[in-house]
Amino acid sequence: TVRNLFLLPGDGIGPEAMGEVRKIIAYMNEAMNAGFVTDEGLVGGCAYDAHGAAISEDDMKKALAADAVLFGAVGGPKWDSVPYEVRPEAGLLRLRKDLELFANLRPAICYPALASASSLKPELVEGLDILIIRELTGGVYFGEPKEIIDLGNGQKRGIDTQVYDTYEIERIAGVAFEMARTRNNRVCSMEKRNVMKSGVLWNQVVTETHKAKYSDVQLEHMLADAGGMQLVRQPKQFDVIVTDNLFGDMLSDVAAMLTGSLGMLPSASLGAPDGKTGKRKALYEPVHGSAPDIAGKGIANPIAMIASFAMCLRYSFNLVKEADNLEKAIANVLDKGIRTGDIMAPGSRQVGTVEMGDAILNEFKAL
Amino acid sequence: TVRNLFLLPGDGIGPEAMGEVRKIIAYMNEAMNAGFVTDEGLVGGCAYDAHGAAISEDDMKKALAADAVLFGAVGGPKWDSVPYEVRPEAGLLRLRKDLELFANLRPAICYPALASASSLKPELVEGLDILIIRELTGGVYFGEPKEIIDLGNGQKRGIDTQVYDTYEIERIAGVAFEMARTRNNRVCSMEKRNVMKSGVLWNQVVTETHKAKYSDVQLEHMLADAGGMQLVRQPKQFDVIVTDNLFGDMLSDVAAMLTGSLGMLPSASLGAPDGKTGKRKALYEPVHGSAPDIAGKGIANPIAMIASFAMCLRYSFNLVKEADNLEKAIANVLDKGIRTGDIMAPGSRQVGTVEMGDAILNEFKAL
Ligand SMILES: CC(C)[C@H](C(=O)O)[C@@H](O)C(=O)O
Ligand SMILES: CC(C)[C@H](C(=O)O)[C@@H](O)C(=O)O
Repeated sequence: TVRNLFLLPGDGIGPEAMGEVRKIIAYMNEAMNAGFVTDEGLVGGCAYDAHGAAISEDDMKKALAADAVLFGAVGGPKWDSVPYEVRPEAGLLRLRKDLELFANLRPAICYPALASASSLKPELVEGLDILIIRELTGGVYFGEPKEIIDLGNGQKRGIDTQVYDTYEIERIAGVAFEMARTRNNRVCSMEKRNVMKSGVLWNQVVTETHKAKYSDVQLEHMLADAGGMQLVRQPKQFDVIVTDNLFGDMLSDVAAMLTGSLGMLPSASLGAPDGKTGKRKALYEPVHGSAPDIAGKGIANPIAMIASFAMCLRYSFNLVKEADNLEKAIANVLDKGIRTGDIMAPGSRQVGTVEMGDAILNEFKAL
Repeated sequence: TVRNLFLLPGDGIGPEAMGEVRKIIAYMNEAMNAGFVTDEGLVGGCAYDAHGAAISEDDMKKALAADAVLFGAVGGPKWDSVPYEVRPEAGLLRLRKDLELFANLRPAICYPALASASSLKPELVEGLDILIIRELTGGVYFGEPKEIIDLGNGQKRGIDTQVYDTYEIERIAGVAFEMARTRNNRVCSMEKRNVMKSGVLWNQVVTETHKAKYSDVQLEHMLADAGGMQLVRQPKQFDVIVTDNLFGDMLSDVAAMLTGSLGMLPSASLGAPDGKTGKRKALYEPVHGSAPDIAGKGIANPIAMIASFAMCLRYSFNLVKEADNLEKAIANVLDKGIRTGDIMAPGSRQVGTVEMGDAILNEFKAL
């Protein structure tokens, strides 16, 4: 089999983190005959510098054609004042939209070795394992009108539109219920139905989808503000959380921070299965950003990027055993007290990006 | 002087909590000749039961005419399926909108006696004192269109509109900068300018307002998702946070939960000073909800409601000394180990709503 990967390392620490994934890919090709074929493009600020756009048409075509996209990170102070349409984030948003990656899976897990790094009391986060399912191609991110109007008299009006259709809610709810079945069988849906009409519809459609097809799964509804509170108060009460694009952005960041493992959390963005082949378009990216302050120093933590590749093995190629092993390799390396600077703790050994990547690869080889 | 207070105890634990404020008002009238004249109305579910609306026109008139409104809480399972237009929250939203209470002040403070009740490590929250300034009459809460459209074919479309005009951002930024000057002189403005046009405008207008009139205050900008993270990671980095209606809803709830003092946090919602009299319309309410599960049992914590009245003394009547004393009375009672069930800790004495109110009143008398 040929497995086409399109690599978009992006800006900041993206390229360094991606370098460590490349080593794992090379090893899997050599030792396991995995058949990965990689191509590479530009996204974000570096694409703007090269082409004047946050991603070129050529690279968009390659992303659309690939079996999976691996995405690093975008942005940095260098591009803080480029025009809105070509800002680094526009590349990521276009990828999500044009590839129709409506389902963003964000696991918030607490690595046992890092429970003490959380700002929460360790007993509240030890063993934490939440999966946040964020709708990724709708809502206020893409709704129209989205504009700034000049009203005259020195007054402007900024407008964004939150919009959700039944089918969009149905399909993301479906993903949440399916995922819950592979876990602890519980879904909590979050919206603000008490102030938003899109929230009213969200609540109805999730309820109906549950009733029609997934009544074996336990379903709870929570207002998104209360949800944010409950994440801080008692995160372990959740199994799968499903929510819209903007609430998902906020809540998954809060959840990520709770784990103490922010630099380690991966994400998968998936499209619908193709009618004929059953294949899903997919993009995998770390939850963390481009961290321009530490870029190029060889000290960035590559774990989130490597864990994103593990999700890729699992969801795009059904290489379940390999995904499990790669995740185990990460946990083992942490257990051995090997740490990059961001997760350094007394008594551990501090290493750089490359050493961390090597340690994980060696562990992976040994499993 | 006559000081007109309009009391809207609302549903759930609202009436019990309001009862404890009434005792303080009575005492201030007797002992300090404070001149409070109170009237009372219905809001939320109880108003719906009485009038079929979440607040009657008559009570709206009284709220508009009063110097200040004291608001308890609204909602409960009993009204979960009343029509959207008359749901309990509609009463609160109408009050905010018709009284033009655009500035919502939400202090997130950690009472020293309660630092250990936080889910965060005590060292991260001890001494925490953030003021969140949330825009309260704009954004996605009130923007039009706000509707559910039937598209046929079993498809519906839920729409909400996020909209901000220059003057709305200017005036809330002004409040934030003014408040910062009375505190640690730092403002952090939060939006999602990387995906929202209203965020782009928000960022610009805050920046310009700062430059034009408040350049003595330190200003920082943060993306709202990163802001949520930073609140969890290191809340003490903040002094004043200014943000829009929806982000403010989410972020202030997260901040409230961090303090471990959720049942104790007050809020003030203020209008613009009147051109002639300089008076502001104002509504004061606890951050917590109606807690229907414990309503009517005499065990609710009245502290948030009493602390909201302290804010009323400060912001509506300029009774600064009295406000300080009332806040001190609360802290003293907590220091003495007197606790309602929600904040009970080993070695403390558990009391009910009335006893807690009495303890605070006695302490207040003694100051
Ligand atoms: C970079 C930005 C556009 C993006 C978002 O808001 O979705 C990021 O915060 C994320 O969560 O992936
Ligand atoms: C009750 C509800 C409408 C309200 C809001 O969303 O503003 C509440 O959550 C709040 O924060 O005051």
